[in-house]
Amino acid sequence: MLAVIAGEGDLPGLVVRAQSGCWFVRVEGVPAVNPGAPEIAARFERLGQLCDDLRTAGVTTLCLAGAMRRPALDPMALDPATMALAPRIAAAMRAGDDALLRLVVRFFEEQGFAVAGAHEVVPDLVAAPGWLAGPDPAAGDLADADRAEAILAALGPLDLGQAAVVAEGLCLGIETVQGTDFLLQTVARTDPALRRGARGVLVKRPKPGQDLRVDLPAIGPATVAGAAAAGLAGIAIAPGAVMILDREATLAAAEAAGLFLIAR
Amino acid sequence: MLAVIAGEGDLPGLVVRAQSGCWFVRVEGVPAVNPGAPEIAARFERLGQLCDDLRTAGVTTLCLAGAMRRPALDPMALDPATMALAPRIAAAMRAGDDALLRLVVRFFEEQGFAVAGAHEVVPDLVAAPGWLAGPDPAAGDLADADRAEAILAALGPLDLGQAAVVAEGLCLGIETVQGTDFLLQTVARTDPALRRGARGVLVKRPKPGQDLRVDLPAIGPATVAGAAAAGLAGIAIAPGAVMILDREATLAAAEAAGLFLIAR
Repeated sequence: MLAVIAGEGDLPGLVVRAQSGCWFVRVEGVPAVNPGAPEIAARFERLGQLCDDLRTAGVTTLCLAGAMRRPALDPMALDPATMALAPRIAAAMRAGDDALLRLVVRFFEEQGFAVAGAHEVVPDLVAAPGWLAGPDPAAGDLADADRAEAILAALGPLDLGQAAVVAEGLCLGIETVQGTDFLLQTVARTDPALRRGARGVLVKRPKPGQDLRVDLPAIGPATVAGAAAAGLAGIAIAPGAVMILDREATLAAAEAAGLFLIAR
Repeated sequence: MLAVIAGEGDLPGLVVRAQSGCWFVRVEGVPAVNPGAPEIAARFERLGQLCDDLRTAGVTTLCLAGAMRRPALDPMALDPATMALAPRIAAAMRAGDDALLRLVVRFFEEQGFAVAGAHEVVPDLVAAPGWLAGPDPAAGDLADADRAEAILAALGPLDLGQAAVVAEGLCLGIETVQGTDFLLQTVARTDPALRRGARGVLVKRPKPGQDLRVDLPAIGPATVAGAAAAGLAGIAIAPGAVMILDREATLAAAEAAGLFLIAR
């Protein structure tokens, strides 16, 4: 039996609808939308209680779906299991959101639950290798995608680089902490004289070792709009490992903008 | 005997003044300022003629100093030596400015001239290892510089990355084709919520294999102003391999802005 620990956005609902008979875990303070599954109420301060409730409900697998902001914890409300976890939580909060998510996953695994990614429950969230939308990429576009992938591969060991833009061999941008939309805005601001008319390709893929169960890179209509505004020829994503948010709208936007979208 | 092949800006004059009794090569179409050295007139189309004139003048060493824009060549004006070079020039022009400069250096070396970098003629253009200006960097700043250097080292084999900014371990930006000033503007636009108050360090250094004789990375007062506007704590440059333009003004700007400037 699956339970979806619901964050914000459309994703929890997508997972719930794809999996008949699953539970919806509503975390206090998280504005999640339940499409009609039976609910379990949870507080981040009472993870021990949550595990008990999940076991009582027959849950064996958890799916953390949707964005969840770093919670403001109430120390008075901690149950014993969460209290025992407190030093690890404090260390993880200092180390960043990724560390906190990894800790939560590890905690649930230690408690005997399996943790599945949204893309494992709903395989349509990611792409099979091949063409997705728009014109066929030119040979030069594929060479640009190769160079962008080489750049990301070089940065992977440094836990850096989910996306890069290359145009006719010139690197126009590498994603850093600000994210993909910011990267595309930055590429759009590039002096046209430096680009010499080159369009370019956005490559997006997970970092090596990234836990796709809780941190799946994503593209969506906004990514296509940003790539079009930056004058790119297309977008290449890693198959099976990059979520396409609002797939129909994303593919339609790529077609409308004349951008290719491929998984490779 | 040295001759300075003069590009734009202050650098040719600096080199000429540092080296008594050298020649100043004025290339047609390049607005170079001669502080008073004897001149040799040159055209890019007549490199064979230039070599003859240099030999007649007793020149054995050349220094290409200052920026030179990609020339618009007049095919009718080519002398035999330049004509013989034409296929290599055409290939280099397609491959970019760096390739063109490397070709010009190789041509002069094939003609028997030594080619020296401006920083070899004027060692004060670059920095010895150590403190240059501003407060002492904190331990965290040095750790940020280490991470930025690791990022640049990872990108070096891809002929990419002269500069990066890291703040408390988070990479805020990696220089791509747009250059260091653009990188700093991009860092300045980062959402403060992502930075969480972290300041950060700009590291600038040459790429491995970069020919410093014709392509020396540089910082100057504008770099300090950009780093200050981006909220950085300081700047670390590679000793002996990054030119400090207008050194006095650069160091004064760092002091005034409370930014450290170190070579390491």
